[in-house]
Amino acid sequence: MREAWVIGAASNRFGKMPETGREAATRVALEAIRQSGLEPKDIGYTFVSNCFGLTEKQGHVGPLINGGLGIPEVPSCTIESACSSSSAALHEAFVHVAGGFTDAALVVGVEKLSHLDTLTATSYFAEAADYAFETKNGATFPGLYATLANAYQKAYPMAPEVLGSVAIKNHANAARNPHAQFQKEISMDTYLRSPMIASPLRLYDCCPFSDGAAAVVVAAKEFVRHPVTEPLVIRASARSGSITEMQDRPDLLGLPATRTAAEKAFRQAGMEPKEIDFLEVHDCFTIAELFALEDLGFLPRGTAGRAEVEGVTARDGKLPVNPSGGLKAKGHPVSATGASQVVEIFEQFNGLAKGREVPRTETALAHNVGATGGSCSVHIFSRR
Amino acid sequence: MREAWVIGAASNRFGKMPETGREAATRVALEAIRQSGLEPKDIGYTFVSNCFGLTEKQGHVGPLINGGLGIPEVPSCTIESACSSSSAALHEAFVHVAGGFTDAALVVGVEKLSHLDTLTATSYFAEAADYAFETKNGATFPGLYATLANAYQKAYPMAPEVLGSVAIKNHANAARNPHAQFQKEISMDTYLRSPMIASPLRLYDCCPFSDGAAAVVVAAKEFVRHPVTEPLVIRASARSGSITEMQDRPDLLGLPATRTAAEKAFRQAGMEPKEIDFLEVHDCFTIAELFALEDLGFLPRGTAGRAEVEGVTARDGKLPVNPSGGLKAKGHPVSATGASQVVEIFEQFNGLAKGREVPRTETALAHNVGATGGSCSVHIFSRR
Repeated sequence: MREAWVIGAASNRFGKMPETGREAATRVALEAIRQSGLEPKDIGYTFVSNCFGLTEKQGHVGPLINGGLGIPEVPSCTIESACSSSSAALHEAFVHVAGGFTDAALVVGVEKLSHLDTLTATSYFAEAADYAFETKNGATFPGLYATLANAYQKAYPMAPEVLGSVAIKNHANAARNPHAQFQKEISMDTYLRSPMIASPLRLYDCCPFSDGAAAVVVAAKEFVRHPVTEPLVIRASARSGSITEMQDRPDLLGLPATRTAAEKAFRQAGMEPKEIDFLEVHDCFTIAELFALEDLGFLPRGTAGRAEVEGVTARDGKLPVNPSGGLKAKGHPVSATGASQVVEIFEQFNGLAKGREVPRTETALAHNVGATGGSCSVHIFSRR
Repeated sequence: MREAWVIGAASNRFGKMPETGREAATRVALEAIRQSGLEPKDIGYTFVSNCFGLTEKQGHVGPLINGGLGIPEVPSCTIESACSSSSAALHEAFVHVAGGFTDAALVVGVEKLSHLDTLTATSYFAEAADYAFETKNGATFPGLYATLANAYQKAYPMAPEVLGSVAIKNHANAARNPHAQFQKEISMDTYLRSPMIASPLRLYDCCPFSDGAAAVVVAAKEFVRHPVTEPLVIRASARSGSITEMQDRPDLLGLPATRTAAEKAFRQAGMEPKEIDFLEVHDCFTIAELFALEDLGFLPRGTAGRAEVEGVTARDGKLPVNPSGGLKAKGHPVSATGASQVVEIFEQFNGLAKGREVPRTETALAHNVGATGGSCSVHIFSRR
């Protein structure tokens, strides 16, 4: 197996895009390729993620993006794994490059939702749950994650300020991230006074609807030779599934798919959690960040809230989590999220995360969840 | 690179399914796995294709299918490449298995359309074209393929009976295929009297709307050791793109993506067209079968029509084409089509194609096109 590197990664500002998804994807893809020192003609395969492309009446978008890049003959396909789509696409890119099937692959995730009203957008999101048992009976993601939060709170009682501290920390980070949708800090008072969406989750516990696009270039070490950026060596690219329907899981304290994907990833990398310098994790709701820290093996079950409150996960803490602002505050353009986590790690490794630098950037982990954990991807990166 | 084999392949009867896409996919997947001699627990990765899942309000369907198979922890993702989705998924399965990333992978393509009215279904199909230049201006696939047929007819004039002979041959084959939607022969008179849809394409030149599901199990030679079926050795798995927008192509005589994918595939297999015993090609419209034969390198440009009329492509001809009945008569449940082509080849290799056997089954080729050729997959199979 060959060593696969991330040598370019770019994102637009999340929030609201004036252009179509296809146009935004082509733009960030070009930026990532330019940054990598490669040219479009070096790309051997394109993996696109675009869950809600049909709301723009555009399927089969890969060949259109490749056409815009001037490489129409390059094969492409679209990869969907709900909110973990572009990390699933990154896994395919890793497999193609590490396995020697192509020398360089492009991953681009894009989503445009701002042309939909909130009810329509919420319905589309809900289609990533189990229609027969969940969606058809009225379940939406805020409700499903509130169920998870309630189960956790029952086992490990916590004050409202615990989840609030996650939101405040991620907003503080996003305020320093030019790609972020919400570039403003919030106070505990603002958090506590925000409306309840699905108890115990308040408005500021929930990630927003976002447009956005992010792209990543993966290439073989031998192909790159003299990288013009500081590459991220992909030490592990692991995915797992789990029982989708929450009612069928043995317990609701965390997400089983994260646990199995993390085990695979640490085994593949030959590393332990204590060797990871910082994390980008899937905080679609604040409770999900607590789950991630515990399921990934960084903290024992029931202790992540305290670590958040004590500042362990702050940008300058012992274990910085979501220096980008996370899904919560950077935004969550579904299919772009997994790729955008890599953009943050790339910028941290390359000294491009001005004003939000984390103390150590030798290693990092990205964690991306599909729906309520039916799918999970974990990637571990290190410097050369 | 390891040798990858298709060791199981199953399909339901195309047409109209009473159950949901998810249920049908799980059922055919179980059948393909059972047939392969493996058990669900042997599957290391699942690739699902389901372009129109959102019309059933079900995205992220892979983990649900895996749950139904009793392997919820197995990673999955959904692969879209318009009408070539499940052959793109087969390519991912090939890469994972041949590259040593997993020992056995499942490909399952499924589509349910029968709950949609014809206008809605036509609109969804059209979203695989270029929205900005084609769909928005009213283009639908019958119109786009009629444009291609007109360009071809201008260069190589042909009587209506030429396209008719493709339809008649494929209906004759489908009449002997228990998986086929249309299990009846048609006469030239029926063909010529069928209504014009988009000149020169008549009703019987067009594939139908179809529900359907098909599944394929791919495994490494070393992992299988003692196959219980006659495996298809994957000699080549190649994909290509091309300029999507028809107005930007240098000519409309054939599909450039087929030409580049075929070149790659024959190079990868170290074979020539004359070494292929029979073909399953993408005949979404009868004109597309002529294109396939010429673009794949089996016949010189402008001569495929004559070969069809002369019976060269008949089941007992020199080069049997679409013994399954093809998209035209077996049906075209978009995301299931690529996998179902492999089902036909598997059944021919294993003596399961009762009453529609082709004379020689040492080698075969499957050709699957996305939209008007923005994507193309070519797979070449041989016996051990």
